[in-house]
Amino acid sequence: MSNIKTYIEENKERFLDELFGLIRIPSISSQAEHKPDMVRTAEYIKDSILSAGADRAEVIPSSGNPVVFGEKIVDPTAPTVLIYGHYDVMPVDPVELWNSNPFEPVIRDGRIWARGANDDKGQMFTQIKAFEYLVKTGQLKNNVKFMIEGEEEIGSPNLEEWCKKYKDLVAADVILISDTSMIGENTPTLTQSLRGLAYMEVEVTGANQDLHSGIFGGAVANPINVLAKMIASCIDDNGHIAIPGFYDDVLEVSAEDRAMLARAPFNLDEYKKALDIDEVQGEAGFSTNERTGIRPSLDVNGIWGGYTGEGSKTVTPSKAFAKISMRLVPNQEHHKISDLFKAHFEAIAPKSVKVKVTAHHGGAPYVSPSEHPGYRAASKACVDVFGDQPIPLRSGGSIPIVAVFEKVLGIKSILMGYGHESDRVHSPNESFSLNRFFKGIEANTHFYGHYNEEMKK
Amino acid sequence: MSNIKTYIEENKERFLDELFGLIRIPSISSQAEHKPDMVRTAEYIKDSILSAGADRAEVIPSSGNPVVFGEKIVDPTAPTVLIYGHYDVMPVDPVELWNSNPFEPVIRDGRIWARGANDDKGQMFTQIKAFEYLVKTGQLKNNVKFMIEGEEEIGSPNLEEWCKKYKDLVAADVILISDTSMIGENTPTLTQSLRGLAYMEVEVTGANQDLHSGIFGGAVANPINVLAKMIASCIDDNGHIAIPGFYDDVLEVSAEDRAMLARAPFNLDEYKKALDIDEVQGEAGFSTNERTGIRPSLDVNGIWGGYTGEGSKTVTPSKAFAKISMRLVPNQEHHKISDLFKAHFEAIAPKSVKVKVTAHHGGAPYVSPSEHPGYRAASKACVDVFGDQPIPLRSGGSIPIVAVFEKVLGIKSILMGYGHESDRVHSPNESFSLNRFFKGIEANTHFYGHYNEEMKK
Repeated sequence: MSNIKTYIEENKERFLDELFGLIRIPSISSQAEHKPDMVRTAEYIKDSILSAGADRAEVIPSSGNPVVFGEKIVDPTAPTVLIYGHYDVMPVDPVELWNSNPFEPVIRDGRIWARGANDDKGQMFTQIKAFEYLVKTGQLKNNVKFMIEGEEEIGSPNLEEWCKKYKDLVAADVILISDTSMIGENTPTLTQSLRGLAYMEVEVTGANQDLHSGIFGGAVANPINVLAKMIASCIDDNGHIAIPGFYDDVLEVSAEDRAMLARAPFNLDEYKKALDIDEVQGEAGFSTNERTGIRPSLDVNGIWGGYTGEGSKTVTPSKAFAKISMRLVPNQEHHKISDLFKAHFEAIAPKSVKVKVTAHHGGAPYVSPSEHPGYRAASKACVDVFGDQPIPLRSGGSIPIVAVFEKVLGIKSILMGYGHESDRVHSPNESFSLNRFFKGIEANTHFYGHYNEEMKK
Repeated sequence: MSNIKTYIEENKERFLDELFGLIRIPSISSQAEHKPDMVRTAEYIKDSILSAGADRAEVIPSSGNPVVFGEKIVDPTAPTVLIYGHYDVMPVDPVELWNSNPFEPVIRDGRIWARGANDDKGQMFTQIKAFEYLVKTGQLKNNVKFMIEGEEEIGSPNLEEWCKKYKDLVAADVILISDTSMIGENTPTLTQSLRGLAYMEVEVTGANQDLHSGIFGGAVANPINVLAKMIASCIDDNGHIAIPGFYDDVLEVSAEDRAMLARAPFNLDEYKKALDIDEVQGEAGFSTNERTGIRPSLDVNGIWGGYTGEGSKTVTPSKAFAKISMRLVPNQEHHKISDLFKAHFEAIAPKSVKVKVTAHHGGAPYVSPSEHPGYRAASKACVDVFGDQPIPLRSGGSIPIVAVFEKVLGIKSILMGYGHESDRVHSPNESFSLNRFFKGIEANTHFYGHYNEEMKK
């Protein structure tokens, strides 16, 4: 029986060449100008899945960017694993902060540097290459399907509808996803829960035109001042979110579970040093990992208004804008939270301005139970490759579609990802370590055998 | 004796052609790319002053953009009037809100539409054309000097030094300035006071890199949230500025003077309707005109940070920025206010962020006394042309250099301007009514004779 380590060693240059070709297509889903790139990327992945040994693969339209589907059915009575991933990436601005072209991957210091190197082109590729190894060496005993979408970074707005339409096509026993992080370079980690998301945009309008801040200053509401005050009022001095009803559905985590979480390795000094901050900041009464893992949060993701150029301009703008998102925990419902936010912002706005609140994408929180056969198989795969039991992680991030899969397809997802906080996903200078890229491929190949055994129990 | 009305009628097309040539040069002083345009504009004005009949005119370097100086000495024993104006203009963004090219003036609805149509190219041109009329018709009995600068919109950072150097060259009995507004299309107005200005820029830094708002949200300070809270804390619920010491030097206006001010025609409903606002907003206990005329104010002129593009991005940015200006009243000192602001912002910043506060330009408030011979001459000129005594105005705007003239040159300035609030100076779609452009020229010609008589009293 061929050895995966040998196979990787013999094929690593090709693996990287193929991944780099994928990364070079700037598939930014939030920017309309990249629409043609989305289709090119989908075609590229279809070809990768076919070359890896799938029986079939195709680019299937959705109401937004297309979804790549592929499958290999080795035995209709064997378990079926559905690989989910996404081929779209985040915007690259501020582009001037990148040390090299975000869409021209380079290898430096043992890492691949590029937008999408990790999230999710690099991680998703670990699944395609693991599949390739098992097929080419005759070791695949499960059925495998692929569902690779192009709108994850904008909240997968069309995948729920697509899943409903293609429910039979993607039917499977478990979904395996590599789009999360490990807590150390060689510390295997399985994400047990994800936060949900409600993402809002606020527009505050004062006068119907930009005004001279001398002639009108002090007498007419300045929408930036008003917006700042409204944002400030959303979080109180204890770090609690001050939107009425916000915490009503929050599932409080037991003291026992909090004690479990506290056992995960974490060094606050190193954390602060890595971010170059003197102090962390958050909800009173909770640790840093609890603040991101089991508590909701509210962040302004963007703000703009007035004169933002060089020098000075004495203007009171007509409008000010903010993008504000909230991370949610079990059992918060994102539509309800969006409604509470909107009602609150409309209620606190002074009569001197007009306020418009709209919801961008949102998503439900998710929990991956540790007794699930897929979770147990993933744990064993981690032990095989990293030599340790994986750390169970309560992640602060969101993959809203995971909750949708459970609701629409009735399938649980296993979050076995190979990222790391140092990879700067969503930021300038995203990277992915070669170590984790290759170990990820290896761990994925081990998952299948263990999953087959677990399903027989 | 030739009549000014006839002269205007016969030369109006030429006047407009010449003004349009001036407006077409995009002399935006706050943007470095326009540096060559500043020199071109100065040369254009030098030529205009020479053609109008000056003995001499030249473009004199300063440490920034050059100053245009010109003069006609008709009698060394006669009074000398120094005309001050500025040839630089404000930026034009957001440029997509303009109905026509900001630097291609058009006449529509009885107005000239362009950046600088009013502020100050159009208004300054009323002085050059009045001078031309008096010279060409042999009616000039005063000496006239011109000092036209190119950095007013960025706070005249180099004119104080220039005035010290050329103090003898620009020596005069009074300074006449057309760079202010009338309170109605045909309601003559003399500005009696101007507010001062302190203009600050604030940079708030959280982590050393943009962060994923899911992974870090709730545990690491978000500089936008922090900045919003800091801005909100600067103004209390009564509209008072909450910076310690801010009001210490404010000259409170007497009940008698406030009663005088209240007699100026003002219709709050029309004011609100023109701005399309449901309510005004400002310091408790003061009227709208008091809020801009005799009370200081604090406005955010620009704010930016995080993702401001299309769609959504779940980022906690590393930095957030704001441009914040304060309008000052007699006896506030702008350097002291800048220091108070900086100290306050540094004091209220939480330890989870770093704050950098820098001062842009500033300027002192100014008062123009009604018993001054220049003020009385301007009043009479207004009566001649508009048929009414001018309204004395406490303006909310700032012309910081006016206080500098008093300090360095020892000369009082008379603020006889022809703008109007509907002209949208500093905003998209700036304009200047032809009515006020031509009446301005007319009123300026009347000023000189009255000033000569007042000086003989």
